[in-house]
Amino acid sequence: MRRIRVGVLGATGTVGQRFVQMLDGHPWFELAVVTGSERTAGRCYGEAVTWHLGGDVPEYARGLTLSPTEPGVDCEVVFSALPSESASEAEPAFAAAGYRVFSNASSHRMDPDVPLVVPYVNPEHLAAVEEQRKRRGWPGFILTNPNCSSIPFAMALKPLHERFGVRRASVVTMQAISGAGYPGVPSYDIMGNVVPYIPGEEEKVESEPLKLLGEWRGSGFELADIGLSAQCHRVPVREGHLLAVSMELAREVAREQILAAWGEWRPRVLGLGLPSAAERPLVYRDRPDRPQPAKDVWESGGMGEVLGRLRPCPLLGWKFNALGHNTVLGAAGCSILNAELYFATTEGR
Amino acid sequence: MRRIRVGVLGATGTVGQRFVQMLDGHPWFELAVVTGSERTAGRCYGEAVTWHLGGDVPEYARGLTLSPTEPGVDCEVVFSALPSESASEAEPAFAAAGYRVFSNASSHRMDPDVPLVVPYVNPEHLAAVEEQRKRRGWPGFILTNPNCSSIPFAMALKPLHERFGVRRASVVTMQAISGAGYPGVPSYDIMGNVVPYIPGEEEKVESEPLKLLGEWRGSGFELADIGLSAQCHRVPVREGHLLAVSMELAREVAREQILAAWGEWRPRVLGLGLPSAAERPLVYRDRPDRPQPAKDVWESGGMGEVLGRLRPCPLLGWKFNALGHNTVLGAAGCSILNAELYFATTEGR
Amino acid sequence: MRRIRVGVLGATGTVGQRFVQMLDGHPWFELAVVTGSERTAGRCYGEAVTWHLGGDVPEYARGLTLSPTEPGVDCEVVFSALPSESASEAEPAFAAAGYRVFSNASSHRMDPDVPLVVPYVNPEHLAAVEEQRKRRGWPGFILTNPNCSSIPFAMALKPLHERFGVRRASVVTMQAISGAGYPGVPSYDIMGNVVPYIPGEEEKVESEPLKLLGEWRGSGFELADIGLSAQCHRVPVREGHLLAVSMELAREVAREQILAAWGEWRPRVLGLGLPSAAERPLVYRDRPDRPQPAKDVWESGGMGEVLGRLRPCPLLGWKFNALGHNTVLGAAGCSILNAELYFATTEGR
Amino acid sequence: MRRIRVGVLGATGTVGQRFVQMLDGHPWFELAVVTGSERTAGRCYGEAVTWHLGGDVPEYARGLTLSPTEPGVDCEVVFSALPSESASEAEPAFAAAGYRVFSNASSHRMDPDVPLVVPYVNPEHLAAVEEQRKRRGWPGFILTNPNCSSIPFAMALKPLHERFGVRRASVVTMQAISGAGYPGVPSYDIMGNVVPYIPGEEEKVESEPLKLLGEWRGSGFELADIGLSAQCHRVPVREGHLLAVSMELAREVAREQILAAWGEWRPRVLGLGLPSAAERPLVYRDRPDRPQPAKDVWESGGMGEVLGRLRPCPLLGWKFNALGHNTVLGAAGCSILNAELYFATTEGR
Repeated sequence: MRRIRVGVLGATGTVGQRFVQMLDGHPWFELAVVTGSERTAGRCYGEAVTWHLGGDVPEYARGLTLSPTEPGVDCEVVFSALPSESASEAEPAFAAAGYRVFSNASSHRMDPDVPLVVPYVNPEHLAAVEEQRKRRGWPGFILTNPNCSSIPFAMALKPLHERFGVRRASVVTMQAISGAGYPGVPSYDIMGNVVPYIPGEEEKVESEPLKLLGEWRGSGFELADIGLSAQCHRVPVREGHLLAVSMELAREVAREQILAAWGEWRPRVLGLGLPSAAERPLVYRDRPDRPQPAKDVWESGGMGEVLGRLRPCPLLGWKFNALGHNTVLGAAGCSILNAELYFATTEGR
Repeated sequence: MRRIRVGVLGATGTVGQRFVQMLDGHPWFELAVVTGSERTAGRCYGEAVTWHLGGDVPEYARGLTLSPTEPGVDCEVVFSALPSESASEAEPAFAAAGYRVFSNASSHRMDPDVPLVVPYVNPEHLAAVEEQRKRRGWPGFILTNPNCSSIPFAMALKPLHERFGVRRASVVTMQAISGAGYPGVPSYDIMGNVVPYIPGEEEKVESEPLKLLGEWRGSGFELADIGLSAQCHRVPVREGHLLAVSMELAREVAREQILAAWGEWRPRVLGLGLPSAAERPLVYRDRPDRPQPAKDVWESGGMGEVLGRLRPCPLLGWKFNALGHNTVLGAAGCSILNAELYFATTEGR
Repeated sequence: MRRIRVGVLGATGTVGQRFVQMLDGHPWFELAVVTGSERTAGRCYGEAVTWHLGGDVPEYARGLTLSPTEPGVDCEVVFSALPSESASEAEPAFAAAGYRVFSNASSHRMDPDVPLVVPYVNPEHLAAVEEQRKRRGWPGFILTNPNCSSIPFAMALKPLHERFGVRRASVVTMQAISGAGYPGVPSYDIMGNVVPYIPGEEEKVESEPLKLLGEWRGSGFELADIGLSAQCHRVPVREGHLLAVSMELAREVAREQILAAWGEWRPRVLGLGLPSAAERPLVYRDRPDRPQPAKDVWESGGMGEVLGRLRPCPLLGWKFNALGHNTVLGAAGCSILNAELYFATTEGR
Repeated sequence: MRRIRVGVLGATGTVGQRFVQMLDGHPWFELAVVTGSERTAGRCYGEAVTWHLGGDVPEYARGLTLSPTEPGVDCEVVFSALPSESASEAEPAFAAAGYRVFSNASSHRMDPDVPLVVPYVNPEHLAAVEEQRKRRGWPGFILTNPNCSSIPFAMALKPLHERFGVRRASVVTMQAISGAGYPGVPSYDIMGNVVPYIPGEEEKVESEPLKLLGEWRGSGFELADIGLSAQCHRVPVREGHLLAVSMELAREVAREQILAAWGEWRPRVLGLGLPSAAERPLVYRDRPDRPQPAKDVWESGGMGEVLGRLRPCPLLGWKFNALGHNTVLGAAGCSILNAELYFATTEGR
């Protein structure tokens, strides 16, 4: 099997660092390219990066030279960890130059011919890539993953929507600071505090899950017909977004049926042998006070979601909590899993 | 005007300490009695107490001798900061012995003849005291204040319920650790973490506001006809419970009307000259990211509630955030305000 | 008595905000001028500032118009909350234009004719102002206060140096995030963490106390002959720098003598009726686990220092802990106290 | 090679849980026994334990039945995670019954015939076991590991003491909350705070390193002749004790010599193939702001120590920071490494 040469766009930022960390020792992908700003281009990655994750810059990546974020780099695949301002122009340029772009940026997520994919949830949306290439005349393509709160929200609803239908769902998020990148949230704003506002977040969480849970109709996406409402908060937690969800199902079900729908959920993507896939993407932790970020965020190496506290809601029917790692499952990990899905199903290796 | 001699039951606990702190220099009440457990009774307050609030034990209270928590103490009024297990027996004993008991404990809050009062919200419920005395044959009485999350929840709804009617309201709380008393939440459970469970809390927050917003019918309380749902979380914040509320009003209103209802709300109790009353119990802070515990919890010395982020909710109509100090407005302060209300309106001074 | 018109240079930053907050209702000083960057000049303070301290922008200051940070503003006194880069040029310009400049910036602290003063410690250094004026030909002057860690370090040593002589002192600081200004320390760097490095801090803490504890010799300062060593750390605390000190005294003394030196210390400045002076600048809190930032930082409204845990040190003789509020006593408060000292002793009012 | 059956005394506490977690999949040791209090004895471990570490109770240990903490259990080795009160009696009883006791408790650390060992530092002290057995007539023995702050303190000094001699060393610790066990430190005491006191800690940190760096003389331990002073603080960090050290060496050396002593340190125990040994027990991280608990605590899986910031100290000569994981290297991990050392060198497998 051939090794696939990949690059990380915006490799010095926090999401970029997570990509570099997660690609260390990856069985299919070989990190060959890291790109940075004009300021850092030409410098050695190990020296240019201020490493924010644990320990030190991974040995294997230290010697890579930072390229400018422009097509011409020597790889087939690029993972985009760019801020959305730069992503909106750079990603199409890379796709037009033939690169397969797997993007964590929000810029193109809701474009009508760009798939927004969580492999556990809607792998069939990959098909939109062909339409995108045709329409845009691109040899490459852009495939995106959702926002770090949309992912666990949509994943928790997916098995229920399949079995029972979800009519309405309200989510209050308590999101970790790492979601804001670096320098991100000033400590004086968040230590011992909660901030009830994250710019642009509620809009994403109220729209992206509808695309994820919707269908690709060959020429466009049909959004799921679910009413969503989101209230997003920043909390003094380093990693892990906690969600408090209440929802109305399309029909009356017993608590055991919901637990069964989650417990028996085996998305078909699990059979593909994707290296980064969790064995069980959804775990219901049956303890009175879980999930908790500090204790559950590393479930399945950060690629699994933990659910808990399912109980009746006097208003909508059911309520529960959900937790996902915001920079692994919720960002770099999902993007890498998307690339794995693509090569396992579409292009082969 | 005479000074009223008061006591604090359970004065060494954290709520008890807050009572002692807030009664320092009170213009009407003179702290004459502090009670403790059998272990501490007979000891000097300044030595027996492990002071958890800022600074040191207030000078004026240091020399008081701790009495056992039994009737016989020399005062007219007792504030009960007892844990609910001991409150359920001790408070009736004090009331039967003629004391006016203002209680922060949950034991008797929902009793059919015990008023549950936030002076800003339902001062007229005080009338139930007479019925209680009659029924139970007590020279004294028990008057309670609600749970620390129920108070800001009900206060925020009150002016809207009066003007428009509230049909349904869902609240997700993010509650400070001080609400759990001392030693309370182990640091290993909460630092850098969120715990989605507080024993017994959701039941209180779903029921107490209905009594607060309901009516005293001479022989019993008629609960408000509002559908409530609560999800309660503990967050790593020292003081201040933050609420994320979404609600359905009984009729369509514009955003300005809701803001006006809050902004123009002048509960009639404000005219009584109660020393602990905030001038404006509800403040809408018109900034994109407020209220925040670290910045807004001391509004009106902790006796005011701060609102913010009113915006449409796709599911229920409206959503917003609210914040109240959990041990001042949400506990000791509300109890003291209840006592002030009582003496200003019922017994005179 | 006349009111003295004062201005705050750099009024939108965090130290600037603390000045504005502390000058609210000041009996001698009337805040007439606030200055900002070119970007904010001309705007209304209440709108231009992003208020980081509790609550909202003080009512009295909202309507002030931000001036550019240049001489010409209508006041006698300016408090400088400028970052050191801009202070190094702006402050001499203001002094040359006749303003009395009380500065919290580090730029000129160690200049040979600029007094570095904590009124409790070395009020007599004020005399250097005359020499400074003469040498520089300025109608105004610059008078500085020390770094936020130097202040409590020097204050704790002062009464001991007077009575016994201090030979050597080693300090390990655990400093609050507010000391870094805003946005200051990124939350991802400090939450649940300690950072053993603050740029430039150790140099200040090892040198400034020598000037404070030294003497003004008419033409220059004679530094105190004490060996100092500092290790500075940032900790996840909002306000209050905690110091772990060990020291060698010039002669053998008993523990009680040290406690007496602290307890009996009544700096002569206390007799001057300065509005911001603590009644007791040094408080020894005789509990096994104090001082603590969360509990002791507001001692005397933040203008007092709390000491504790005096015990023998096997290496140097004695060790203890000390705590001071870093933006009140350690910054704006000290600067205001310096101005009060100046007008009470030198110019009169 | 045979598998060695081991037990964990006090397996439900936090250190006990860390033992259970670290023994999961251990190549030499097979966890066969877990003991608890009388209250939990007889219950299934998976149900009786409230798991505080990440995720859930390790699968392999869930079905074990808790035994009472008394000899008679079926294993050769016991790891003691007992609190010192119970350890002082239970451990001798186990040793007298023939068990090899590897203890993390402080009760017997300073006993004259009990080795106190960190394999990287003083493996030769193991020899004291024979003397202990002889003196006490025990078929088994007690071998202890030091306090969680003593370990990184002594490890950092060891290579310097060997090469240059250490005369005096002063340490200020900033210790994580997990060091206090569970429930341990109440959150209200430590969140956003620093507590300058840990009962009994300074005594341990000033004495244990002297035994570690001393010598076993056949009939007793000769303590190292180093002057030590410790000031211990609790900080709001979950895992990792940070040390600020200043020290006086016996002779003048250059900075490079100290770095070389650390960098070239290869304790001979590394050649023994112990499964839990770090490849490099001491890592000097040459960045201006390291080590930091949040970033460096998992060095070598928590079995390595990270050093940084070596610089001259005006008082003692040199100062630096050090960091060690307090429940891995500083507790359970050191104890397991001790057992590995014992079987690799003394008894064979």
